Amino acid sequence: MKIEQYQIDQHNDGLLSSHNNQYVYTKELLGEQGIYADEVVKALQDFQVAIPSWALGTGGTRFGRFSGGGEPRSLEEKIEDVGLLHALNRSSGSISLHIPWDIPEQPKETIQLASSLGLTFDAVNSNTFQDQKNQELSYKFGSLSHVDAGVRKQAVNHNIEVIKYGEQLGSKALSVWLSDGSCFPGQSSFVKAFQYTLESLQEIYAALPDDWKVYVEYKAYEPNFYSTVIQDWGSSLLFCQKLGPKADVLVDLGHHLPNANIEQIVATLMMEGRLAGFHFNDSKYGDDDLTVGSIRPYMLFLIFVELVDGMRRANRGSSSYAWMIDASHNVKDPLEDLLQSVEAILISYAEALLVDRKKLEQARSVNDVVLAQQILQNAFRTDVRPLVREAMRQSGGAIDPVGLFRQVGVRSELMNERGKITVATGL
Amino acid sequence: MKIEQYQIDQHNDGLLSSHNNQYVYTKELLGEQGIYADEVVKALQDFQVAIPSWALGTGGTRFGRFSGGGEPRSLEEKIEDVGLLHALNRSSGSISLHIPWDIPEQPKETIQLASSLGLTFDAVNSNTFQDQKNQELSYKFGSLSHVDAGVRKQAVNHNIEVIKYGEQLGSKALSVWLSDGSCFPGQSSFVKAFQYTLESLQEIYAALPDDWKVYVEYKAYEPNFYSTVIQDWGSSLLFCQKLGPKADVLVDLGHHLPNANIEQIVATLMMEGRLAGFHFNDSKYGDDDLTVGSIRPYMLFLIFVELVDGMRRANRGSSSYAWMIDASHNVKDPLEDLLQSVEAILISYAEALLVDRKKLEQARSVNDVVLAQQILQNAFRTDVRPLVREAMRQSGGAIDPVGLFRQVGVRSELMNERGKITVATGL
Amino acid sequence: MKIEQYQIDQHNDGLLSSHNNQYVYTKELLGEQGIYADEVVKALQDFQVAIPSWALGTGGTRFGRFSGGGEPRSLEEKIEDVGLLHALNRSSGSISLHIPWDIPEQPKETIQLASSLGLTFDAVNSNTFQDQKNQELSYKFGSLSHVDAGVRKQAVNHNIEVIKYGEQLGSKALSVWLSDGSCFPGQSSFVKAFQYTLESLQEIYAALPDDWKVYVEYKAYEPNFYSTVIQDWGSSLLFCQKLGPKADVLVDLGHHLPNANIEQIVATLMMEGRLAGFHFNDSKYGDDDLTVGSIRPYMLFLIFVELVDGMRRANRGSSSYAWMIDASHNVKDPLEDLLQSVEAILISYAEALLVDRKKLEQARSVNDVVLAQQILQNAFRTDVRPLVREAMRQSGGAIDPVGLFRQVGVRSELMNERGKITVATGL
Amino acid sequence: MKIEQYQIDQHNDGLLSSHNNQYVYTKELLGEQGIYADEVVKALQDFQVAIPSWALGTGGTRFGRFSGGGEPRSLEEKIEDVGLLHALNRSSGSISLHIPWDIPEQPKETIQLASSLGLTFDAVNSNTFQDQKNQELSYKFGSLSHVDAGVRKQAVNHNIEVIKYGEQLGSKALSVWLSDGSCFPGQSSFVKAFQYTLESLQEIYAALPDDWKVYVEYKAYEPNFYSTVIQDWGSSLLFCQKLGPKADVLVDLGHHLPNANIEQIVATLMMEGRLAGFHFNDSKYGDDDLTVGSIRPYMLFLIFVELVDGMRRANRGSSSYAWMIDASHNVKDPLEDLLQSVEAILISYAEALLVDRKKLEQARSVNDVVLAQQILQNAFRTDVRPLVREAMRQSGGAIDPVGLFRQVGVRSELMNERGKITVATGL
Repeated sequence: MKIEQYQIDQHNDGLLSSHNNQYVYTKELLGEQGIYADEVVKALQDFQVAIPSWALGTGGTRFGRFSGGGEPRSLEEKIEDVGLLHALNRSSGSISLHIPWDIPEQPKETIQLASSLGLTFDAVNSNTFQDQKNQELSYKFGSLSHVDAGVRKQAVNHNIEVIKYGEQLGSKALSVWLSDGSCFPGQSSFVKAFQYTLESLQEIYAALPDDWKVYVEYKAYEPNFYSTVIQDWGSSLLFCQKLGPKADVLVDLGHHLPNANIEQIVATLMMEGRLAGFHFNDSKYGDDDLTVGSIRPYMLFLIFVELVDGMRRANRGSSSYAWMIDASHNVKDPLEDLLQSVEAILISYAEALLVDRKKLEQARSVNDVVLAQQILQNAFRTDVRPLVREAMRQSGGAIDPVGLFRQVGVRSELMNERGKITVATGL
Repeated sequence: MKIEQYQIDQHNDGLLSSHNNQYVYTKELLGEQGIYADEVVKALQDFQVAIPSWALGTGGTRFGRFSGGGEPRSLEEKIEDVGLLHALNRSSGSISLHIPWDIPEQPKETIQLASSLGLTFDAVNSNTFQDQKNQELSYKFGSLSHVDAGVRKQAVNHNIEVIKYGEQLGSKALSVWLSDGSCFPGQSSFVKAFQYTLESLQEIYAALPDDWKVYVEYKAYEPNFYSTVIQDWGSSLLFCQKLGPKADVLVDLGHHLPNANIEQIVATLMMEGRLAGFHFNDSKYGDDDLTVGSIRPYMLFLIFVELVDGMRRANRGSSSYAWMIDASHNVKDPLEDLLQSVEAILISYAEALLVDRKKLEQARSVNDVVLAQQILQNAFRTDVRPLVREAMRQSGGAIDPVGLFRQVGVRSELMNERGKITVATGL
Repeated sequence: MKIEQYQIDQHNDGLLSSHNNQYVYTKELLGEQGIYADEVVKALQDFQVAIPSWALGTGGTRFGRFSGGGEPRSLEEKIEDVGLLHALNRSSGSISLHIPWDIPEQPKETIQLASSLGLTFDAVNSNTFQDQKNQELSYKFGSLSHVDAGVRKQAVNHNIEVIKYGEQLGSKALSVWLSDGSCFPGQSSFVKAFQYTLESLQEIYAALPDDWKVYVEYKAYEPNFYSTVIQDWGSSLLFCQKLGPKADVLVDLGHHLPNANIEQIVATLMMEGRLAGFHFNDSKYGDDDLTVGSIRPYMLFLIFVELVDGMRRANRGSSSYAWMIDASHNVKDPLEDLLQSVEAILISYAEALLVDRKKLEQARSVNDVVLAQQILQNAFRTDVRPLVREAMRQSGGAIDPVGLFRQVGVRSELMNERGKITVATGL
Repeated sequence: MKIEQYQIDQHNDGLLSSHNNQYVYTKELLGEQGIYADEVVKALQDFQVAIPSWALGTGGTRFGRFSGGGEPRSLEEKIEDVGLLHALNRSSGSISLHIPWDIPEQPKETIQLASSLGLTFDAVNSNTFQDQKNQELSYKFGSLSHVDAGVRKQAVNHNIEVIKYGEQLGSKALSVWLSDGSCFPGQSSFVKAFQYTLESLQEIYAALPDDWKVYVEYKAYEPNFYSTVIQDWGSSLLFCQKLGPKADVLVDLGHHLPNANIEQIVATLMMEGRLAGFHFNDSKYGDDDLTVGSIRPYMLFLIFVELVDGMRRANRGSSSYAWMIDASHNVKDPLEDLLQSVEAILISYAEALLVDRKKLEQARSVNDVVLAQQILQNAFRTDVRPLVREAMRQSGGAIDPVGLFRQVGVRSELMNERGKITVATGL
């Protein structure tokens, strides 16, 4: 299925008058504060969020999975799904693949398909947290950190293979989330697990093409419930320092202990020039993988305040970081959920762009805490949706992506095409 | 010091044109959604938040306190401070006293002073978490739950005395936050502590005037660090059930374990007809007592969504609940901080009033999770500040309370009057 | 496979001399403190822990499952597995079934098999957190709390059916863990969900045989990640109060928010006469379902201190409560894991029995906190393993259950019988 | 007051027979496992825990403080108190001072007094979390990280002054716990705060004598409730890396987010050669500063398992690390509390020394998780108190320090000497 431009145009036409009113008002409101709405809109247009292939199907928990229908059954259908999203919001212009589920059998055709939908290939993801059929050695007790050199070798080779698949598609980074760890005190030696992992990562690092990066993700717990080999940003950074300049730290919002100040972690990593990018989602308890912005939108805003600050300090554009949604869609239509997530990201980014940095620094320099808070909240409380809609519209997308998605009956069409009880491959 | 109406009017005049633009726009925007801005404004005007006497001075931590200046030195000065706040925002129309620090020596004069500033007296608060000079028995190991009947009796008498002071001023409720608990496993018997506390509360309950209520607050921990006698809403409710219909549960936002779903607690208590009201504040880690809305504004909004829902179900107005700010102002001017808190409360309330309940119920009835989220977020993302400002303006308050507070130099005037190194009495 | 008594006797003979030394020493040590070791041993022998059918296979997480071999493929094989455990430790004398996976086709034969192994049937468990093949309506959006009356009816009927299966086997209780809740703010109405659930439970309650109980379990989160209908003990108790005297609260150690004081919850529920029993496990982060006692053994001890206290106050024996292990065996042999869990439970129980209650009350009555802590820690620090071993030995079990399990090669024998890649039915 | 050796000897004589029985039994029990009890006892004797001067008085919370009596009123009396502890347990052979409260006016006499009691001077602690009388600039908004260079300079100078006081007494390290941070989003720039702090620490580092170290402590929150400049071990390590080899990370058990795996942090820091040492205490909720081992003794044991491992890997003795108790004694006699804490530390250390490392490595190498857990728990469940008592006895201390403390009436004697309502100086 494909959404045609005329469908988007028709949709926009119907909303345009109302949207224009809101956009003009917002533009004037911001103008009075010395902010150029056009520049914000431009920045929003440049902000592209990758969609991981595993997020296109219904997710589940250890207690089960309630599948929906019309889920993509192949790499091609996954690319088509992301194409649908991108057609709607013009902000999801890349896809992140997961090996072994997304192995490109015919890379050229795959690239061509993606190109035709305006998509590129983001970081490729290895997987050693499950055993695959016909796999020689098991990852039950770890992969890159395993006590058995044979298992480590197998996992290293898998990662190198993933790099090769990525190269074929034009990816420029390998993303490593290592589920290795232990479930019980005593089970493993923290130091040996670290050292083994380091050696494994060094082998992988050595196999990186010149213009590639490796992203080292951390996670406090799950699926191991006592310890994880890379438990926090400090561990990730330590690995990256030992690996070299091509290794950066990847932050997933759900991978922290309760109450963590994630925005400060972001600021610190950017200060060190070591932030790879983000896996966006939201959570209330653990790594709940909920829709971005659905639980703690103010925290997301504060993170973007740091991101904007860090990008300016480093003089880097948003496209030089890896932004991806990593959520699990258990009770919503996966595509609608992704549209809501992208919207939430852009809203937070827009709000962060409204922060009056000069005034903020001035307030900080005299410890005017009341004013500093007010400056942030003024940006956060501003209704920036007209800016986000305008950005999508100007880029050729829909003013109301979810609305149009429903209007044209995307899901039922996909169910017609693919069946009502398809289950997406991949986790 | 007093802020005169003409000062407010002048201030408002300068902002009126810009404010009117925003208000008119917002009114139209809401009108398109079938919402009458005027009704929201009216509801906001009716919402009054009590100010506790102990929040008027600089707060501190166990590591120290960095006092500001011009803090109130007497009950009269505390009333004057709340009068200043109420003059500015017209939403802080009552004061909550803390005995023994706020004993009214001349109740009539005290009432007269308060009335002249448009203030009434909210719930009175007892204190048994500190020892006072010349106190016969110590509360080191508890008060209402103490193993020694003599200490319990002393604490009961103190509470009854507090009721009497409250009666003189027109209060209608006693608020009991019990710091009793234990610091170490083994220190106390959970069951005995519960039973002693119940007996003590029953004595206090028996002393309540006919039209009074007692509010039973709970808290997960601090200042006791292993257990507290009333650790959660379930415990509070159990006490209230055993006490009788005049006992209701008081919720303080900071008194929960990490990640608690407070909005559900609120809904449950309202369903049971047992919600007394709220102590508003915000926090990131524990009972941090930060400015309302400064950390988790979306959670505050979700709580208000339940409050509005519960009030409608019970057919009760907002004035029939006890709303109070309970924060500690460690690094901000206490009065400015309180103005920010009241504003945040009204913003959340306004947003909650915008939620399209009919559409929400419809979405829920078909499990349209995407739409249900969108309905809430549509309300939350709307910039309701023009409504809050209009409510204050119409009530005779300032469009920008903090701005006017600074403009007329309230703090420096108070420092002139009271001294630069005053320390407010009370905690 | 079956372990013969002579195997156990041989095993014990080899360890007896060393064990006797330790037991005699411990007996004397306790004797000096006025404690009769024999009485403790007797109490330990009486303490029976149910094994749930789903714990006999390898567990997993949402990221996958690494199966072991020789897992039970049928209800009969599950009973045989529990029989093996009980033969080894004489403390696992009952099995808790999970419908629809454990439907007894020939109840008489099933009972006979169980009896021959010394086993009875504990509480039966319903399941509405997954959809079964050919199920008419889906539980994706809830079961007993579902907005659709048809789904609620189906779930109620399922529970009533479970009761009927249980009756056939001699069970006396239905255990309800309700996974219902919501993943996003707005998704469901807390109040309606509560009311629907209450109505559903009332129908189930009405179907309970005279001598049955229903256990109402609570859980803070997972598999729903924003709210659960029965989120904490307060909610559970509220349901039980409304249902009637046959409804009690079931506590699962892993179902709480971080840092919860579970021992106080236990004490409060026992005070109210509403504790049904326990689902034992351990955890570091969430509902990690780890081996009992592997992470927080002191907390487990403190819980047992309350259990012993509550049983004495209520003059009830340990057999009048429902004790069960509810863990997930992801990286250990499930049977070995269960043996370790039972041992940890008995150790904690033994330690709790050593607490000098009289001295403790005396210390509490004068707020001697140092001494109160010392009394508890004296019990906890005592090595009670000789008592636990003696209890098992006297009951006909093995002195070292895990040791004997390995010695006779239980797992490899089971793999021979059942195959190397069996996967236990049930979650 | 002083405890004489004959008092200790008399006390020991009364307990000796019973103690000997227990020690001999334990020695044999361990002997069967190939462990030499004498070596464990020797290691325990070598383990010395510093006592901070501020822990000798009653602690408090922001809600108040319930003082005891007989608290030390001067540096001399503090040293005498630690002398009492050390006489009793022979394991508290040093004192850690807090400037400005413990400025040694006559260093020689101070050293002489300490020496006469067998005490040395541990790390000295600076304080910039409170303002002192006559202090020129305020630390309300930070010290080493303050936006004002003047405040930073003042704080740097204070730290350098503390080094000088320490030098006079023979200290070899400066311990920096920086309370700097922010209470509200927006209040401060994370990056600037880091950079300012780094510059300040570099100036302090430059002032360190050749054989000194600086310990950089981290803390997740409190007294700042939104962010702290040094929020976690990763931040601390980053500072140390930038400072140089004389800077190491100090771990305080209470300074972490909920559920943190502290033992892994310890292992990682030791692997990097960057662990300075420990501030021991225990907690259930936040930085509760409770008696060591009173809440999570198994976690303490696991930490010691790593410490023993790390010390052996690095071939360093326990005396080359900084061990200190940092607790707040709110409801117990401070000296009794400290005796309990030291005992708990030694118990954990003893248990960790019992772990069969060879067998553990063997179990790990084949992923025998059940056995690995059993090996740790076997050590933990062993009653090692006879070893600890023997170590104290052999060193000339009391078999039952708290018992003797009470027997000779230390507290009442101190109250006679110093008064019933003394309040110790210092926090």
